Amino acid sequence: MPYFTKTYHPPGTPPGTLVERAAGAAGALSIRLVDYTDQDYLDKVVDHADECRPYLERDSITWIHFQGAIQAQALRNIGELFDLHALAMEDVMNSGQRPKVDEYEDQLFIVMAMLDVQAPHMKVDQVSVFIGPNYIISFHNGVHDPFDPLRKRLKKRSGRIRSLKADYLLYGIIDLIIDHGFPVLERFGEEIETLEDTLLAAPTRSTLGDIHRLRRELLLLRRMLWPHRDIINYLSRGDNALIGAGTLIYLRDCYDHSIQIMDLLENYRDMAASMHDVYLSSASYRLNDVMRVLTIIATIFIPLTFIAGIYGMNFENPDSPWAMPELGWYYGYPLVLGGMLLIVFGMLFYFRRKAWL
Amino acid sequence: MPYFTKTYHPPGTPPGTLVERAAGAAGALSIRLVDYTDQDYLDKVVDHADECRPYLERDSITWIHFQGAIQAQALRNIGELFDLHALAMEDVMNSGQRPKVDEYEDQLFIVMAMLDVQAPHMKVDQVSVFIGPNYIISFHNGVHDPFDPLRKRLKKRSGRIRSLKADYLLYGIIDLIIDHGFPVLERFGEEIETLEDTLLAAPTRSTLGDIHRLRRELLLLRRMLWPHRDIINYLSRGDNALIGAGTLIYLRDCYDHSIQIMDLLENYRDMAASMHDVYLSSASYRLNDVMRVLTIIATIFIPLTFIAGIYGMNFENPDSPWAMPELGWYYGYPLVLGGMLLIVFGMLFYFRRKAWL
Amino acid sequence: MPYFTKTYHPPGTPPGTLVERAAGAAGALSIRLVDYTDQDYLDKVVDHADECRPYLERDSITWIHFQGAIQAQALRNIGELFDLHALAMEDVMNSGQRPKVDEYEDQLFIVMAMLDVQAPHMKVDQVSVFIGPNYIISFHNGVHDPFDPLRKRLKKRSGRIRSLKADYLLYGIIDLIIDHGFPVLERFGEEIETLEDTLLAAPTRSTLGDIHRLRRELLLLRRMLWPHRDIINYLSRGDNALIGAGTLIYLRDCYDHSIQIMDLLENYRDMAASMHDVYLSSASYRLNDVMRVLTIIATIFIPLTFIAGIYGMNFENPDSPWAMPELGWYYGYPLVLGGMLLIVFGMLFYFRRKAWL
Amino acid sequence: MPYFTKTYHPPGTPPGTLVERAAGAAGALSIRLVDYTDQDYLDKVVDHADECRPYLERDSITWIHFQGAIQAQALRNIGELFDLHALAMEDVMNSGQRPKVDEYEDQLFIVMAMLDVQAPHMKVDQVSVFIGPNYIISFHNGVHDPFDPLRKRLKKRSGRIRSLKADYLLYGIIDLIIDHGFPVLERFGEEIETLEDTLLAAPTRSTLGDIHRLRRELLLLRRMLWPHRDIINYLSRGDNALIGAGTLIYLRDCYDHSIQIMDLLENYRDMAASMHDVYLSSASYRLNDVMRVLTIIATIFIPLTFIAGIYGMNFENPDSPWAMPELGWYYGYPLVLGGMLLIVFGMLFYFRRKAWL
Amino acid sequence: MPYFTKTYHPPGTPPGTLVERAAGAAGALSIRLVDYTDQDYLDKVVDHADECRPYLERDSITWIHFQGAIQAQALRNIGELFDLHALAMEDVMNSGQRPKVDEYEDQLFIVMAMLDVQAPHMKVDQVSVFIGPNYIISFHNGVHDPFDPLRKRLKKRSGRIRSLKADYLLYGIIDLIIDHGFPVLERFGEEIETLEDTLLAAPTRSTLGDIHRLRRELLLLRRMLWPHRDIINYLSRGDNALIGAGTLIYLRDCYDHSIQIMDLLENYRDMAASMHDVYLSSASYRLNDVMRVLTIIATIFIPLTFIAGIYGMNFENPDSPWAMPELGWYYGYPLVLGGMLLIVFGMLFYFRRKAWL
Repeated sequence: MPYFTKTYHPPGTPPGTLVERAAGAAGALSIRLVDYTDQDYLDKVVDHADECRPYLERDSITWIHFQGAIQAQALRNIGELFDLHALAMEDVMNSGQRPKVDEYEDQLFIVMAMLDVQAPHMKVDQVSVFIGPNYIISFHNGVHDPFDPLRKRLKKRSGRIRSLKADYLLYGIIDLIIDHGFPVLERFGEEIETLEDTLLAAPTRSTLGDIHRLRRELLLLRRMLWPHRDIINYLSRGDNALIGAGTLIYLRDCYDHSIQIMDLLENYRDMAASMHDVYLSSASYRLNDVMRVLTIIATIFIPLTFIAGIYGMNFENPDSPWAMPELGWYYGYPLVLGGMLLIVFGMLFYFRRKAWL
Repeated sequence: MPYFTKTYHPPGTPPGTLVERAAGAAGALSIRLVDYTDQDYLDKVVDHADECRPYLERDSITWIHFQGAIQAQALRNIGELFDLHALAMEDVMNSGQRPKVDEYEDQLFIVMAMLDVQAPHMKVDQVSVFIGPNYIISFHNGVHDPFDPLRKRLKKRSGRIRSLKADYLLYGIIDLIIDHGFPVLERFGEEIETLEDTLLAAPTRSTLGDIHRLRRELLLLRRMLWPHRDIINYLSRGDNALIGAGTLIYLRDCYDHSIQIMDLLENYRDMAASMHDVYLSSASYRLNDVMRVLTIIATIFIPLTFIAGIYGMNFENPDSPWAMPELGWYYGYPLVLGGMLLIVFGMLFYFRRKAWL
Repeated sequence: MPYFTKTYHPPGTPPGTLVERAAGAAGALSIRLVDYTDQDYLDKVVDHADECRPYLERDSITWIHFQGAIQAQALRNIGELFDLHALAMEDVMNSGQRPKVDEYEDQLFIVMAMLDVQAPHMKVDQVSVFIGPNYIISFHNGVHDPFDPLRKRLKKRSGRIRSLKADYLLYGIIDLIIDHGFPVLERFGEEIETLEDTLLAAPTRSTLGDIHRLRRELLLLRRMLWPHRDIINYLSRGDNALIGAGTLIYLRDCYDHSIQIMDLLENYRDMAASMHDVYLSSASYRLNDVMRVLTIIATIFIPLTFIAGIYGMNFENPDSPWAMPELGWYYGYPLVLGGMLLIVFGMLFYFRRKAWL
Repeated sequence: MPYFTKTYHPPGTPPGTLVERAAGAAGALSIRLVDYTDQDYLDKVVDHADECRPYLERDSITWIHFQGAIQAQALRNIGELFDLHALAMEDVMNSGQRPKVDEYEDQLFIVMAMLDVQAPHMKVDQVSVFIGPNYIISFHNGVHDPFDPLRKRLKKRSGRIRSLKADYLLYGIIDLIIDHGFPVLERFGEEIETLEDTLLAAPTRSTLGDIHRLRRELLLLRRMLWPHRDIINYLSRGDNALIGAGTLIYLRDCYDHSIQIMDLLENYRDMAASMHDVYLSSASYRLNDVMRVLTIIATIFIPLTFIAGIYGMNFENPDSPWAMPELGWYYGYPLVLGGMLLIVFGMLFYFRRKAWL
Repeated sequence: MPYFTKTYHPPGTPPGTLVERAAGAAGALSIRLVDYTDQDYLDKVVDHADECRPYLERDSITWIHFQGAIQAQALRNIGELFDLHALAMEDVMNSGQRPKVDEYEDQLFIVMAMLDVQAPHMKVDQVSVFIGPNYIISFHNGVHDPFDPLRKRLKKRSGRIRSLKADYLLYGIIDLIIDHGFPVLERFGEEIETLEDTLLAAPTRSTLGDIHRLRRELLLLRRMLWPHRDIINYLSRGDNALIGAGTLIYLRDCYDHSIQIMDLLENYRDMAASMHDVYLSSASYRLNDVMRVLTIIATIFIPLTFIAGIYGMNFENPDSPWAMPELGWYYGYPLVLGGMLLIVFGMLFYFRRKAWL
């Protein structure tokens, strides 16, 4: 994942401009309409957003979900159809937004970052949600629709989800998004432990790249998830008419989860930084090890080789008693070998005292 | 202890769902009922939670403690029996929660992290407490029941514990949990001092792993204990009807302890980070030492060996006065040896001036 | 860009003094007048500031923009002509100001830092803006006029820009300035990724300088951009009569952008610091690599050379059985070669066990 | 000084329990009574705390000071005699408390950390003070009574100390405790400067231990002194009836001192951390130095030795013109020596260009 | 500049005590009286502080400035003469105070730190200012009187300085003190850039000392200048009768300057810390360079020397076909030389593949 993920207009573009993008890899747009009261439940895929209009006017809770890449023209139509603020539509279009909540007249607009747990590498999609008194309009620019578990609960009437208002559905959506953090963090935790083991046992060159990549991903994750805390805090303050008192206690539970995720992320970041220190210290230690072996070997043999070199010299003056008389001694050779042995033992003794052996 | 210790549901699970877990190592569930007034004291182990119900209705203080691993079905029954909130029950089930306090209608729900001082390695269990006007229901998912000292005090009527309300019992529980931090921190303090001594005297490869493990444990500990401060702060603010004014001064004492523990933890963390620097510097210093020895030995003997090599060459042209005439000199050999000695002393003098000797 | 970019008076100069500067590289001053109502639109380059005076008295929105280097005398005239506060004029003159907003009686004075996206290196210009009920007077000390996109929107009546008051024009200016951060940060993001790749693959000496320069530029950028957040926060608080309620929602959007830019900058700074660690660790690793090769080669050949040296000695006493009898053995030479081979294999085995091979 | 200095009860002990300790090194307990009005001054050593009781009832200011180690039973008696809160008595007993102020009905209880300036190593004692409307009861668990200067001022009537109430005496005590920080910090400042000089000139292995010890002591000091700020801040807020308005200005002066001490401590800590970097960099620099010498020597002589080795080979086939004909050349030897000299000069030139010489 | 610059009394000294100091290097005391109204202006050097008394009673603005070292007795007289608080006088005497503002009945006492821009090394003097409704009494313990520019402005009536009250004069003094930071920071900025260039090009041992000294001076500077922000913030809050509303806007300008100075200092500190990393990385890089050369040379020549050593052995048994038959081969010598060449090229190829060449 690159550092800079935001799409943006050239500076000076009027606010609320929607610019056509190259068709991305996020697949085609699909629209899913869910409409329910305590008694009835309707769930269908529609072709055009216009078909949803009549449901909004009814007294039921209507949830319209747009899944996949959306084109500027389609988005412009949707904005007009459901009377959504142009600034918000721009944020839906320009993915990579910082998560936030904006308050419009009788509407809340929420942008959140959703981790794709099925992706092999870290991947963050954007979920944009509009909530009004009895409807929710949501956009997800990823490949897989993550909200199936919610629809199942709605259909099964599990819990109180059908009997409550749109704010409880919003809680369901937020809770689902937040909780996607746990499997991802669990995976990171295991990765850190594996890295630590490698690091202390036998670090290689690629370990260094792994640590750096880990720090980078944790940093990106933190940037995307940190604002969630503020969003839920804002919603659970209870001063917005759209969020009923009964939902507040559930949002507080969400808030706890979000804090727990940030706590974990901070821990991971601290340990990843510490791993750099360990890598460096470990490399230093191994270097010491290598150098000690070299030094011991060299220090023992260099003087010996020198002595052998001495007696390999060719001084020979038959008239001189000084021309290497040792060479002619009866015990010359064994004496030299003995001297060498003495040097070896002296060295070994010295190294032992220096605790190098 | 792994980094990620929270148990969690798959995202999208309805709030308050209790999922059956594999039977853990925390042993079977045991239920202990304590019921007392200023005059009477009852302490018995019960088989089924239902037996406790009548005591709750009486005017006495009732303390029901569930010790050990609990199954989802049993927990669901307990929740219904004592009318406990489903979200709270989920937190009891899913251990590894961040410590927190939740306020329900006429009930407080508190989650705390309890250090197991008897475990050989760092181990953190979860204590969950519900407090109402005249009862306390507590859960501890560890092996040993840590609350025996409290029951002894209740039985012995030591202090004012029997004459006061449930909030004073709650203080007793919290105080006990917080104070478990002191022996653990004392042990950490000793471990750090031992590590420091090793580090400055003779660090080995395993020292590095020890420092890293220490940083990791301190980080985990900090994550678990930090929220305690907020919990006690919240309770001692005195705006909750369940916490009487007389207990506030005791809670403030608890708060002091909790801050002192955090202060110590921060100090430990700072010193553990500093130990990495010491390790690295110490390794650098030793490397210098090793390299100096190698350099001195090599620098002295390499030129000598070269000279010996020169006079080991086999140039011999009987007609040439240039064919190594030194070899035939009368004093050739002693002159060469003398020259070598001069080189040695020159080197030693140079090294001394460079302060390498 | 140097660290210290502020121009300042000698200490003790009276406040509001305008000192003549050497004519800079920012080009000559040009004055551009824009005057519009919902119906009319006028856009012309004027020669003297005096020509703008009558437009200010009319009921239209008047925007006077001074582009390029300005001389003290000209600035003094402008100040008197439009009744601008002397302290503010000093800030216009002394570029390199910290971005800020000052409130005068019925006027706001805003200083912002504008990134020059066309400059090859990081370059920050200063934009100073005065806003009153129906006029905006702006100064930009750079080479290129960055506000053309705004004038185009005014002329085309795109969006609601013509029907709203001066505060919406101010929003347009601020939005343009803030959004200049995105292309610059995008470029930085790419530069960091390139540096990371170099760092992990094959760092050179210049990589070190690049990392340091990056940290320096990010630091300067942060210093210039950080106060923008406070400025927009101040404006969007809505307690200033000059900023209408309708503009607040747009300023909040600006605020989001400004926070997103700071988030990115902090991430970049963290990663740049981490890159230093990687550089150091990577250098350590490569040193290990180099030393291992040296040690293996040296350790294998030094003993062998010593043995060869031994048998190169010239001990010869025809009478002594101790004078290197090996030299005369029938299998002497192959035995020695065999011994050497044994040593080589022993060494290789030892290194393999040490995992050096 | 160890990291963990707090004495504590086993978890679960009732609050306010006083446990007998082994008689420490702090010497026997001595009780000193000072009782004064504007006119009279009494200063005597008493044997039993009971003798002080009548003075408390009089209209004078009474100051009872307990110096040295105190036993649980004695403390229990004192608590009952003067009606002091059990929780406070526990804090007096269990030294190593975090400095704090507790408010009881008509009493303040203050715990502070006092540096022992006469101790050769860093030593922190605990001072516990109870203040009521007209009395002060203080405990100091160190060896030397530090409050003599105060008693001298009381006796000499220097300043306004005798004409004011107990709160001014409390200020005197606090001021004395705070000001003990200055000589200690002055000593630390000198120690840091000495360490810096050593570090930049000729760091040894023990320098590393000194830096680590310094960081540790500064950390402990910070932990003990940091809360003083909060204590004085609390007292000087002026909302406690025991602290008169006239004393507030003096407490503010104390507060300034306390902040100045913390500022210095933070500076010291920053410099101590920087010293680790200097140590490491300095070690790296010296290693470079050593390695350069080794490399130069080895690189010059290794090729020379190789050449000498070549001409020490024994190829001799009288029939072959290829059998080392150089050995028989007329100028063979001087040519080889000349070639070696060329190599040496080439190397030296190369090293000079690399700036290694 | 040493770390610890505060002069202090022994702990236990009564507050407000003035102790005689050894006559410092700050030169003799000189007293300068300035008295002005809108019409009149008087500026004279007086011998005794008493001569200033009558001016204070008049309706004019009176500014008495004490320049240089002051003795305790003189200070005591001044305190009594002008009715200044003893605690404040103690702060005037004991230089090295933390900058602060104290509020007395109808007086403000301000301590600030003034940088001596003319000193070759960093030097910080103390300026102490008392301000009342129509007078200012100031002390400066440095050598040079820094306030001449202010007196010139008063004399020339430049700006509004003569028509306004004492608070505007106070602003003039504070502004002058704050603005002394700019030239000093400009110099630091240049020094950092020079250091950076050295660091990246050719760091020497003294560079390390320079970086450390820089960090130390920046730290001291920060400690002295940081509290200025709080002082000006306090004064510009506008809730003190001595500071008129008209001066507030000028103080806010001062506040901006003070923040800008802190911003720069923080940047400098960050870069100085980063320079340590660069130094270390750069040393590592150069070590790598050195070691690579050594390793290449050694690795190439060690095997060659070994081969030469082999054929320098003296095995000779005329009866044995195994006694180094190679020595007698016709092409023996060229074959060996050729083998050596092969080894050299093999090595070079290997090093090129390892990217060491």
